[in-house]
Amino acid sequence: MEHDTFNKTELTLLGLGDMGTALARAWLAAGHPLTVWNRTASRAEPLAAEGAKIAGTAADAVAAGELVVVCLLDDASVGEALAGVDLTGKDLVNLTTGTPAQARARAEWAEERGARFLDGGIMAVPPMIGAPESGGYVFYSGSRALFDAHHGALAVPAGTMYVGEDPGFAALHDVALLSAMTGMFAGISHAFALIRKEDIAPAGLAPLLVNWLTAMAPYAYGTAGHLESGDYTKGVVSNLAMMVEGNSTLLRTAEEQGVSAELLTPFTALMERRLADGHGDEGTTGVIDLLVR
Amino acid sequence: MEHDTFNKTELTLLGLGDMGTALARAWLAAGHPLTVWNRTASRAEPLAAEGAKIAGTAADAVAAGELVVVCLLDDASVGEALAGVDLTGKDLVNLTTGTPAQARARAEWAEERGARFLDGGIMAVPPMIGAPESGGYVFYSGSRALFDAHHGALAVPAGTMYVGEDPGFAALHDVALLSAMTGMFAGISHAFALIRKEDIAPAGLAPLLVNWLTAMAPYAYGTAGHLESGDYTKGVVSNLAMMVEGNSTLLRTAEEQGVSAELLTPFTALMERRLADGHGDEGTTGVIDLLVR
Ligand SMILES: NC(=O)c1ccc[n+]([C@@H]2O[C@H](COP(=O)([O-])OP(=O)(O)OC[C@H]3O[C@@H](n4cnc5c(N)ncnc54)[C@H](OP(=O)(O)O)[C@@H]3O)[C@@H](O)[C@H]2O)c1
Ligand SMILES: NC(=O)c1ccc[n+]([C@@H]2O[C@H](COP(=O)([O-])OP(=O)(O)OC[C@H]3O[C@@H](n4cnc5c(N)ncnc54)[C@H](OP(=O)(O)O)[C@@H]3O)[C@@H](O)[C@H]2O)c1
Repeated sequence: MEHDTFNKTELTLLGLGDMGTALARAWLAAGHPLTVWNRTASRAEPLAAEGAKIAGTAADAVAAGELVVVCLLDDASVGEALAGVDLTGKDLVNLTTGTPAQARARAEWAEERGARFLDGGIMAVPPMIGAPESGGYVFYSGSRALFDAHHGALAVPAGTMYVGEDPGFAALHDVALLSAMTGMFAGISHAFALIRKEDIAPAGLAPLLVNWLTAMAPYAYGTAGHLESGDYTKGVVSNLAMMVEGNSTLLRTAEEQGVSAELLTPFTALMERRLADGHGDEGTTGVIDLLVR
Repeated sequence: MEHDTFNKTELTLLGLGDMGTALARAWLAAGHPLTVWNRTASRAEPLAAEGAKIAGTAADAVAAGELVVVCLLDDASVGEALAGVDLTGKDLVNLTTGTPAQARARAEWAEERGARFLDGGIMAVPPMIGAPESGGYVFYSGSRALFDAHHGALAVPAGTMYVGEDPGFAALHDVALLSAMTGMFAGISHAFALIRKEDIAPAGLAPLLVNWLTAMAPYAYGTAGHLESGDYTKGVVSNLAMMVEGNSTLLRTAEEQGVSAELLTPFTALMERRLADGHGDEGTTGVIDLLVR
């Protein structure tokens, strides 16, 4: 296998789980010189045949690279893998999922050890890595200088989105999107539960759900406008009073269909609290203020 | 005002609230002869100037029309408005929001009175009525013969989607979509709450949320496939074990950001129950079975 590795960044990757392996393959396919390390050495072997250099220890792997990417299980495993490793002068990119506070602490830790630090939140599953048409991308935050210096290499596995110098922002964006998705999945689950005992094909409901959710997702623009202006009534078409009224039909239908309403009730309870506080002319934006302590 | 009313169905509409008024305007604009009635007579006046005939009682209004459309507050108001009114030989379309059981009972009630019955669930807000480009539509279920006979008139205010002879199915589809949307709105609310105290612009997060939710909504196709085949592991990329693990980062981030996790915890609790039951290799489809009693 021959690659044009001239002028390409010397890369090191720690962690060859499902995601790390996908990242490694994308960089190798793009001709990046790559040194890899994995705690369980056997997972590295297939990559040697594809052109990767295998390091015996994390310290050796780090020494070999200019740009060091870490994709391990969790923040604790990053601390373990890099304990005692010399990071002086290195550019460290952490693609391990964690919380914003973990990313901020890890950034400080890296800077104390003489490394520039960038945190990443991967909005993709392994099959989407190295496949630009998949729409997968990675949130980055932390050192802008690092991001700019290595943008070429970072852009190989997936699209990039830099969201700020605060090293916690990539994780925060990542978690915000995954949390919103969790709510949507909960809603989808409830919808399918409602038709479970009926003569309605799930495959018939699915496209209706997808179209409806896609049409209604832009509701988030209105919510953002409310939060930015402080006026939660602007452009509201279905007001809170109507929505709370409508919710009673949703809850009653769940009851009729023998479906637990536990996935709907926390939100309807918050809407009712906000309505009781005298905000019937708003949409649902006021619920956000009830969530924040 | 002159209209080509030749061969157009004689229409009656009961209820001139926000939705009824929008429906009336769409039919008048399309040249349908229209008789309207509203409990509070003053709401009908503006429509007289636009070509509607005003009936003094619900009974007079029903007598004037071949196709009688009802769009009132709730099922109880339909019963009140039509109490003692002769429905013999009429085609009755109920666009009042209700539960599937209410629609089924109303269908029986109508048939006992000699009327054909169709129930509708409006997937639109009033500004979307009479505006085909808005994508709004109405689910219909019940008498297929009625639906076919009057499709021309029914298609005027919004697109139509016939979902079955069971008169409860329109309401059930309506509620299923609104329930899924409620979950999505809950998720969006949680996402905005996470950044509330941070230097991140809501208007910057909004398009990321919209794109992500739009990209992830097709998850519903996989869920439908699982329900139809009974194999909940088919094509699963992120399995339940991984998702439960990932949820701990979501919950921990909520804690860090001072945000109540009450909108996320019911779904994560169900995922944990399903995982504990030994289904770590599934996606989230098994949660649906836990919801159905
Ligand atoms: N897979 C996805 O769909 C996806 C999507 C977005 C983000 N991510 C994130 O990407 C990261 C990696 O995910 P993955 O799917 O590759 O996970 P995985 O397949 O479970 O692999 C975990 C990796 O972490 C290593 N590891 C665990 N504990 C360690 C320790 N104490 N010291 C050193 N190495 C340790 C494992 O090494 P061994 O081989 O020795 O066990 C393995 O290389 C995670 O933070 C995940 O949240 C994954
Ligand atoms: N607006 C929307 O965005 C929307 C979207 C989808 C579906 N829908 C459904 O469409 C239906 C009508 O909604 P809307 O927005 O037009 O509501 P609305 O503006 O509140 O109007 C309610 C209508 O019901 C009448 N009414 C209430 N109780 C009555 C009774 N006991 N006897 C006779 N008439 C009675 C009212 O008459 P008075 O004028 O005399 O009070 C009025 O015409 C509801 O079922 C709603 O769920 C609405």
